Amino acid sequence: MIYPQAFLSEVQQQRKEFPGLTNKVYFNFGGQGTLPRSGLEAIIDAHNLLQQQGPFSLKVNDWIRQKTELLREEIAQELGVEPPTITLTENVTSGCNIALWGLDWQEGDRILMTDCEHPGVIATVEEISKRFGVEIDICPILNTLNEGDPVEVIKERLTPQTKLVVLSHLLWNTGQVLPLKEISHLCHNYAESDRPILVLADAAQSAGSLALKLGETEVDFYAFTGHKWFCGPAGVGGLYIRPEIFELINPTFIGWRGINIDEKGQPIDFKKDGRKFEIATSAYPQYEGLRAAIAVHNSWANSEERYQQICQLSEYLWQGLSEISAVNCLKQSPPEAGLVSFKVDGNTNHKEMVQKLESQGFLLRTIRDPDCIRACVHYFTLPDEIEQLIKAINSMI
Amino acid sequence: MIYPQAFLSEVQQQRKEFPGLTNKVYFNFGGQGTLPRSGLEAIIDAHNLLQQQGPFSLKVNDWIRQKTELLREEIAQELGVEPPTITLTENVTSGCNIALWGLDWQEGDRILMTDCEHPGVIATVEEISKRFGVEIDICPILNTLNEGDPVEVIKERLTPQTKLVVLSHLLWNTGQVLPLKEISHLCHNYAESDRPILVLADAAQSAGSLALKLGETEVDFYAFTGHKWFCGPAGVGGLYIRPEIFELINPTFIGWRGINIDEKGQPIDFKKDGRKFEIATSAYPQYEGLRAAIAVHNSWANSEERYQQICQLSEYLWQGLSEISAVNCLKQSPPEAGLVSFKVDGNTNHKEMVQKLESQGFLLRTIRDPDCIRACVHYFTLPDEIEQLIKAINSMI
Repeated sequence: MIYPQAFLSEVQQQRKEFPGLTNKVYFNFGGQGTLPRSGLEAIIDAHNLLQQQGPFSLKVNDWIRQKTELLREEIAQELGVEPPTITLTENVTSGCNIALWGLDWQEGDRILMTDCEHPGVIATVEEISKRFGVEIDICPILNTLNEGDPVEVIKERLTPQTKLVVLSHLLWNTGQVLPLKEISHLCHNYAESDRPILVLADAAQSAGSLALKLGETEVDFYAFTGHKWFCGPAGVGGLYIRPEIFELINPTFIGWRGINIDEKGQPIDFKKDGRKFEIATSAYPQYEGLRAAIAVHNSWANSEERYQQICQLSEYLWQGLSEISAVNCLKQSPPEAGLVSFKVDGNTNHKEMVQKLESQGFLLRTIRDPDCIRACVHYFTLPDEIEQLIKAINSMI
Repeated sequence: MIYPQAFLSEVQQQRKEFPGLTNKVYFNFGGQGTLPRSGLEAIIDAHNLLQQQGPFSLKVNDWIRQKTELLREEIAQELGVEPPTITLTENVTSGCNIALWGLDWQEGDRILMTDCEHPGVIATVEEISKRFGVEIDICPILNTLNEGDPVEVIKERLTPQTKLVVLSHLLWNTGQVLPLKEISHLCHNYAESDRPILVLADAAQSAGSLALKLGETEVDFYAFTGHKWFCGPAGVGGLYIRPEIFELINPTFIGWRGINIDEKGQPIDFKKDGRKFEIATSAYPQYEGLRAAIAVHNSWANSEERYQQICQLSEYLWQGLSEISAVNCLKQSPPEAGLVSFKVDGNTNHKEMVQKLESQGFLLRTIRDPDCIRACVHYFTLPDEIEQLIKAINSMI
C-alpha cells in the first residue's frame, strides 16, 4: 500500500472513466491505452454529427477543420510547444517516416541509430540507406541501462558525415529514459560537422507518460501516438518539428491537406505549418476521441503530477518484482517512467508466462530483445493490482 | 418517376439503413458516402470489444489480424482481384503515394498525367519531379468528355522515356469514365519503350460505384477509398497492385505491418503480399465499419446491378437538368456513372448556389476546374429527390 485510503478512493473514481480497467488487470499501456468512456462517446457523437449534417457538406468540412485545430492545440499544450509545429499523422511510425524521408539525403551521409529502436523504424532507415547510399551506424545504448553514459556513447559515434541521430526518448524494451536535451545539444553543437546534426526521437512511449517541454529539449523531430499513454483511440498520432528546421524538411507522402491551391485547383505551394506533412482524409471521429482522453487526464492532474504518480507506482512494481528471487528486473534502480521490464528464471519461457497471465486476467507483453516481459503502469494503476500481479507471477515460478 | 412503386418501396427500405439520408437530400457521395447504421454499430462493437478483451492483448491482436484479413478479402471481392494484391491504407491519396514513390525513378524519366487529376496527386508528382529530375507531361483529357478519344490523346503523348501514366478511372470533375483496359493495354505494349509503361489509376470515384474486374483491365495500380461510394467511415482505403509488377515496387513509408522480423525483433525482409506497404497501427474499428457498409450494399444487389441503377438515376438527373435552359451539363450525353457536373448561367455564382442549396437541405459541392457544381447519385437515391433538386435549382435561377 503506497497511498492513503482517501487518495485511493479518488483513483477508483477516476478509473470508472475507463471501461477497459473493470474486468482485468491491465499492464499494456505501452501497447495501447484504455480508451475512456468519454472518448468513445466523443467518437460516436462525431459519427452522428457527420451523418446529421453531412457527411460531406460545407458545415461538416468547417467542423472538421475546427476540431482538427483544437486537437492540434491540445496536443501542443501537452508537449509544451506551439500548435503550428504539430503535424497530425495516423501513428508514430508515419511521423518517423515523414522525418526520415524529408531530409535531403546524399550518398555518404550517415545515420546514427541506437540498438533499441523499433523494427519499423529500423526497416525505414535500412530502406533509406539502400536507396540513397546512406551509411548506418548503430550505437550500443542498451548497455547504458545500468551503467555508462548514453550521451558519451552517442558522442563517440558521431562523425562529420552524420546527418541524423535516431533514438527513442523512452526505450520501449528496457524503459530507460534518454537525456534528450543533452543529446540534442551535443548533436547541434558537434564541432566537426559543418551543419548541426539533427535528432529524431521516437516518442511512442514517452508522449503521454513523461512531463514534456519539447522546446527546451532542442529535439528536431518528435514522433508520437495518441493511442498508448494518452489512451486515445488507435489511428491518431503526430510529429513535432522544431521551427528552426521546418523549412529544410520536404514533404514526401503528399495530399490536399498539405497544400495551397489556386482558383483552378492547381497546387501553388505547401502550407507553412505542420499541416504541410498531412496527407488526406483521416478517421476524424478518432480525433475527438483523443481530445476527450487528454481532457480526462487533465481533469485528474497535470502531466508533471501524472508522471510523478506513474514513477511511484512503477517503483512499487519494480520493488515487488525485485524481491522475487527468480525475477530479474533489467533495471537495477527504480524505473524513470511507467515501463518495468523483467526476466524470469526457470522452466517457464516468457511467452508462455504472458499467455498464462493473460488467461488469468493479467495483460502484459513479451519483448524479443532483450528477451523479457514488460509491464506498464499508468497513473491510475492501483497498488492492489501491482500486488496481485506480483502474487500471480510468484505462483507461476 | 423512373421506377415502379414496388421497387421504390424496396429502395425506401434500404434507405432506412442510412441515418444520413433522413434529414436532407444528399448528392455528395463523391465527397463522402453516408455511413449505414450497421457500420456505426460495427465501429462501436469493435471499440467495446477492444476495451473488453484488451485493448492490447494476445487475444485482441489476433482479432485485429483476422478482421483485417476479412476486410482485405471483401475489398478484393468488390474489385474482382485476389486478396494478396490489396494494401490497406488510410485514404486514396496514400495509395497513390505508395505507387508514386515506389518506382525506381531516374533522371530523365517522364510521367504522363491527365489534366483532370486531384491537387494532392498533382503535388506529389511535382515533388517527385523536383527530387529526381523526372519530367511531367500533361495530356488534355478534359476535352475528350464529349468528343475525341482519350486513348488516342494518351497515345500521342507517350514517349520512350515515359515510365508511368497517372489518370483517374472516373474523373472527379466531369464524371467521365476513362477506358482503363484500352489505356493499360496501350501502355503495356508501347513499342517504342524497352519496358512496359505502368498505369496508376486514382479510383477515388470509381471504387464502389463502377462494376469492377480489375484483373481484366491490366491496370498496375488502383488507389481507392472506402469512405466515398462504399459508404464506409473516413480513414480506410487501399491500393491494388498488379501481381506481375509487385516485386518491382519498393515500400517508402515503412512500419511493422510490412516487415518480417527475426527472433531478436530485427527486420529480415518485406512481406510478400499487399501488407508490404502497410505501415503501423490504424483506426481498426473503422475497418469493421467499412466491412459492414460493403455488406449492406451486397444485401441489396451485386456491384453490376448497383452500377446500372446508379446510371439510370444519373441519367434521370442529367435529363432533368438539361431541360433547364440556364443549366448546362458538362456532358452532352447521359453520364456513365453517378457524377453529374453542370454550370448555371446568370447572376448566381456556383459557390453561392451550393451554399443556398445546402441551407435548403440539398447537399452538393462546387468544382474549381471546370468551374461547375457536382451532384452525385447513388443506387439508393430516390427519383423524388432528383425532382426536388431540379425544382430547387429552377427556383434559384
